[in-house]
Amino acid sequence: MRYFRSNIGAMAGYVPGEQPQADGFIKLNTNENPYAPSPKVCSALRQAIAPSLRLYPEPLSDTLRSTAASVYGVKRSNVIVGNGSDELLSILLRCFVGSQDRVAFPTPTYSLYDTLVDIQDGITVHVDFPSDFAVPESLAGQNAAVTFLCNPNAPSGTLVSLPEVERLARAVSGILVVDEAYVDFAESEGASSIPLISRLPNLVVLRTFSKSYSLAGMRIGLALASDEIISGMMKVKDSYNVNRLSMIAATAALQDPAWMNRNVRRIQRGRKKLMAALRRLGYSVYPSHANFVLARKIGQNLKGVYEELKRRKILVRYFDAPGLQDCLRITVGTPREIQVLLKEMAAIDD
Amino acid sequence: MRYFRSNIGAMAGYVPGEQPQADGFIKLNTNENPYAPSPKVCSALRQAIAPSLRLYPEPLSDTLRSTAASVYGVKRSNVIVGNGSDELLSILLRCFVGSQDRVAFPTPTYSLYDTLVDIQDGITVHVDFPSDFAVPESLAGQNAAVTFLCNPNAPSGTLVSLPEVERLARAVSGILVVDEAYVDFAESEGASSIPLISRLPNLVVLRTFSKSYSLAGMRIGLALASDEIISGMMKVKDSYNVNRLSMIAATAALQDPAWMNRNVRRIQRGRKKLMAALRRLGYSVYPSHANFVLARKIGQNLKGVYEELKRRKILVRYFDAPGLQDCLRITVGTPREIQVLLKEMAAIDD
Repeated sequence: MRYFRSNIGAMAGYVPGEQPQADGFIKLNTNENPYAPSPKVCSALRQAIAPSLRLYPEPLSDTLRSTAASVYGVKRSNVIVGNGSDELLSILLRCFVGSQDRVAFPTPTYSLYDTLVDIQDGITVHVDFPSDFAVPESLAGQNAAVTFLCNPNAPSGTLVSLPEVERLARAVSGILVVDEAYVDFAESEGASSIPLISRLPNLVVLRTFSKSYSLAGMRIGLALASDEIISGMMKVKDSYNVNRLSMIAATAALQDPAWMNRNVRRIQRGRKKLMAALRRLGYSVYPSHANFVLARKIGQNLKGVYEELKRRKILVRYFDAPGLQDCLRITVGTPREIQVLLKEMAAIDD
Repeated sequence: MRYFRSNIGAMAGYVPGEQPQADGFIKLNTNENPYAPSPKVCSALRQAIAPSLRLYPEPLSDTLRSTAASVYGVKRSNVIVGNGSDELLSILLRCFVGSQDRVAFPTPTYSLYDTLVDIQDGITVHVDFPSDFAVPESLAGQNAAVTFLCNPNAPSGTLVSLPEVERLARAVSGILVVDEAYVDFAESEGASSIPLISRLPNLVVLRTFSKSYSLAGMRIGLALASDEIISGMMKVKDSYNVNRLSMIAATAALQDPAWMNRNVRRIQRGRKKLMAALRRLGYSVYPSHANFVLARKIGQNLKGVYEELKRRKILVRYFDAPGLQDCLRITVGTPREIQVLLKEMAAIDD
C-alpha cells in the first residue's frame, strides 16, 4: 500500500462478529444484551433531542464522570470516558506503546488487542493460558509496557480473583489493563478490580455500557485509574470524543442500577440452563462469569455446526483460529432464544 | 510521568474553546451553527430511540456511507465515517506517520494538528502563510508524510482555489489532507476538492457535520479519498467507531440539504454585515469563507477585549499564540447575537 506506514500495510485489521442487517436472525454472536436498555435511558434521550445538538458536548464528559465516580466509589479524576471501551484501549496503546515496545497478554482472549498492537508497531507477546484459565506463571516476566487481562476473559468466560490481579499488577514492569467488559455478570459480588486502583498506580480498569447496560449501540466505555494515568490519557483522547446523547444515555443508565441488575440476574439464570443443556449435548463448557459461554468438543472442528446454525437463522461465534476451532462462543439470549438454539443444536447432532 | 511514552509525557495536550455549562452566554467562540439541526434529523432520532440501542451499530456505517457517496458523487468505497472529523485526523496520523516522520502545514491554522503529531512522536513542520493566506511556496518541498491544508482555513477564514490544491497534491511527497470543515460556507460554489479525489491518489478530503449541519453535539465526520486510502484507514479505525444515533442523525441531515443551505445563506448574510461593522470599528477583517471571521488590530494585544466581552457574557476566541494576539476569531451568530456583540464591542472601544 503506497504512502502507508509499513506496519499498517502489513496488518490484517480486526474482524468484528457479523452484524446482519436482515431481520429474523437469533443473534448470539456478539455478546449483546437480549434485553432493552432502561426506560429511563430512553426517556432521558428523548428529552435530549433538542436544538442544543448544534453545540459541542462537554469536552471531558464531566457530568458522566461525576456520576460514575460516585457509583464506583472513586474520584472524578480517576475516570475517563471513551467512545466505547475500544477507544480507551486505543488511547492506552498510544499512551504507553511506541514502536517495538512489548505488549503481553494471555491467550486465547479478545483478538482486538493484537490489532491495536500492530497499529502501534509494537511487539505482541502471547502467553498461553493454562487449561484452567488462571493467570499464566510467566505473564508478569515479559518486560511489557502494557499487559492485558480480560477479566472475565473472552471467549472463555473465566474469572481471575482479585488477589491474583493484585499480584500480577505488582509483578509486571509496566501498566496492567484489566478489561472488565463482562464483570457485572460474574457469579459472585466483588469481582471487580476497581477497589485496587487506589493502591496500584499502574492498574487501569476498563468498563463498558455495551453489555450489562444494554447500550452497545451507543458506544460508551470508562477507564478507571490513578489521577496520573487518567490525566495523561486525557491528552491523547480527541477533544470531543463522546457525543451528547451517548453521555446522557450512560448517565441515565448508571442512575437506574435496578434495571441493569434485574437483566443481569435473568442472564445468569439463562446461562445456568444453557450450560447444563450444552453439557447434556456432550459439550465441555467452561464456568462462565460473562453473558456468553464457550462450548467445546475437544478436537472436533465446529465450523460445520456454526454454518448449520447460521442456515437455520441462528448466529453464534466461531473463531477460525488455532486452539479455538473446536469451540463455539454462544451469547446468553432470552429463555426463548436459548430454547430454539438448543433444539436446533440437538437436531444438528442427530 | 511514569510509564508513559516520553513524547506523551512531554506534550501539552490540545485546549478546546471554552464550553461554559452556565446559561446566558452568547457563544461565538467554537464556530457552532447558531441554528438548530433539521426537524427531520430530530424526528429520525426520536424514531431511533428503541430497544435496538442494545445492538452494536453497523461496523462500517454503510447506510451513511452510501448516502454520502450519492450526495458527493463518489463511490461508497471512497468514504469512511468518523466520530467527528477529529477521529479521522487521528486515524490518518496513525496510518501515515511513524516516529520522527514529518508532517507539514501552513500556519496559523487548526492547532489540533500539532497535538496529533506529538501523539505520534512525529516532527511538525510549520510553514508561515504569506499575508494573503495563499499556499506557501515552500510547503510542498518539506518531504512530509502528511501535509495538511485547512480550506477554508481556521482561524483566517480564507480559501485556496482548486487549481492550487491540485498543484499542491501533485507536488507533495506523501498524503495531502484538505480539511473542509467550513467549505459549505464558502462564497462561491465549487470550493470543495472532493471532485479531485478521482484523479489524485494521495488526496484526502475531510468533512464534518458539526458546522453547516448544526450537529457538533453528535460528533460525525467523513473522509473521502481513493479506495486504497479508505481501505487502509478502515484497518485503523475502531471496529464500531460511530454510534447508532449519530449515524441516523447524519443520514437524515444529508437527506435535507434545503435546511442546511437555508442556514448557510443566513450565516453568509450575517457574516457580510459582521465584517462590514467590524471594519467600521477599525478592525482588519480577512475575507471569510467560513462561519467565523478573524478580526485584527495590527500590533495591539486583544486579550483585554476578549476578557471584557466575556465579562459581558459574550464568548469569542482569543489565541494566546505568537502572531495571533492581535486577533479575535468571532463565530457568525444570529442577527441578534451579532447586534449585541457589535454594541458591546463599540462600548468597550469608547
